[in-house]
Amino acid sequence: MMWNCDWFSITTTTMSDTADRPLTYVHGYSESEATRLGDQADTLAELLHHDTRYPPGARVLEVGCGVGAQTRHLLARSPNASFTCVDRERSSLLSACAGLPTNGGGAGSVAFVQADIFHLPFRQASFDHAFVCFVLEHLARPGDALRTLQRVLRPGSSLTVIEGDHGSTFFHPDSPKARRTIDCLVETQARAGGDANIGRRLFPLLIDAGLRDVQVSPRFVYADGSRARWVDGFTRKTFIAMVKGARESSLRLGLVSEDDWSEGIVDLERAALDDGTFCYTFFKATARVA
Amino acid sequence: MMWNCDWFSITTTTMSDTADRPLTYVHGYSESEATRLGDQADTLAELLHHDTRYPPGARVLEVGCGVGAQTRHLLARSPNASFTCVDRERSSLLSACAGLPTNGGGAGSVAFVQADIFHLPFRQASFDHAFVCFVLEHLARPGDALRTLQRVLRPGSSLTVIEGDHGSTFFHPDSPKARRTIDCLVETQARAGGDANIGRRLFPLLIDAGLRDVQVSPRFVYADGSRARWVDGFTRKTFIAMVKGARESSLRLGLVSEDDWSEGIVDLERAALDDGTFCYTFFKATARVA
Repeated sequence: MMWNCDWFSITTTTMSDTADRPLTYVHGYSESEATRLGDQADTLAELLHHDTRYPPGARVLEVGCGVGAQTRHLLARSPNASFTCVDRERSSLLSACAGLPTNGGGAGSVAFVQADIFHLPFRQASFDHAFVCFVLEHLARPGDALRTLQRVLRPGSSLTVIEGDHGSTFFHPDSPKARRTIDCLVETQARAGGDANIGRRLFPLLIDAGLRDVQVSPRFVYADGSRARWVDGFTRKTFIAMVKGARESSLRLGLVSEDDWSEGIVDLERAALDDGTFCYTFFKATARVA
Repeated sequence: MMWNCDWFSITTTTMSDTADRPLTYVHGYSESEATRLGDQADTLAELLHHDTRYPPGARVLEVGCGVGAQTRHLLARSPNASFTCVDRERSSLLSACAGLPTNGGGAGSVAFVQADIFHLPFRQASFDHAFVCFVLEHLARPGDALRTLQRVLRPGSSLTVIEGDHGSTFFHPDSPKARRTIDCLVETQARAGGDANIGRRLFPLLIDAGLRDVQVSPRFVYADGSRARWVDGFTRKTFIAMVKGARESSLRLGLVSEDDWSEGIVDLERAALDDGTFCYTFFKATARVA
């Protein structure tokens, strides 16, 4: 049985708040990027989402669902909840809707809505839970986004926020040039108004946005020669692929020379060999709406 | 009942292998350092040692026990094993022996032996398990140490190695000067022949030393405003205290100006306030002797 997939094309939402809308979404919308997001979500699903389950009938809002890479895993763990998944990009929502799995007989539903986190077209207290994954890192005012979001959540709602932190990356063999390619991605994202190192500051960010019972749980990724699935699924197909995605912008912004960038990538790939290691930390925060 | 604490003052071992003996043990032997090591071990004991238990009668060799900071926690978890704890420094061994807890009626024993890891005064295959914590980071040839050590272990013995990785450190608010104070410690240790970033390379190091079934388990430390015990026990009393301990050597080596160092410490302490966060990764490796 397929998910009951409703489609609400609410295109009247204007994207006026340019300060919160990076000129370019740093990772782009290419097909290879969609593949990367799928690889990332599959590899990380257990690590990031195993403890996120919503009860039957719960009204869950996912903000910034993109192509639905995390959505699929949310649905799989909560087959009887009622999801509303929001994104600014109509094409991403179309992909998300098309890529939904069967729901194995669950009574849950999914509705996709095109909207901006700062202009959510929902009544006050419409939801019991909110889920925000890899979104705040791209916003210039993530704290304001969290404050705005709370309007559509009933008091006592749960909020789950997941973010990475590129500054948490370290690897063996270490290499200044490899670190430089990562810094290029961080800098590219910063110039677009985002913060690729946001994971480490989720705790004060949520506290400052007025949320209660804030708890942050780091999720450490470690890949070495004995963990082929992580080396391939994370180091290569998620992380290095993401760094590679920032090549054009890094060169255009003059952050690095073409040669240094290429050598840095070679060094990063060196860490994915049998005697290399690679480490990265995600942060998962949970909190309650006052 | 006290531990049956034997003392073997085998001082005939010569410390001839100067290449493997840093001119100065980077953290020194002061009383404040002994306190720091105690704080560190207590805070981290559960995280690092909860899964290390030796069966009754097992012959366990701890190499580089120092003042016994880890020894106490090892004994508490394996009250019926037979420990032999080795260190180069007689004064550290005296402290270790004096600081032993009661063993709660266990049948275990502890013997302290003054010796160098490269000249262990034991017969071949004398032990069933080896435990090496915060030692390899100080050696110029850690791989050779692991190879030498295997002589005194019976085939099939377990080896447990625990190391930190100062390059894994990140925190909020981020600060280049704070990072610089940490780099000073790393550089000081490197000039003494060690590697403060050794944690990330335990996997290839153990493989290369001929060990089998090598498995590395990262142990992530995260401190924020909701985790007072970690902020105080780890960020302040373990990590910042350790960085502070390298002040004189960092200034003497000209690695940093006095002002920059002081400002860096202020910034590090900023990360221990209620809206700061602090992250560090330890690595615990287990393996079998062929």
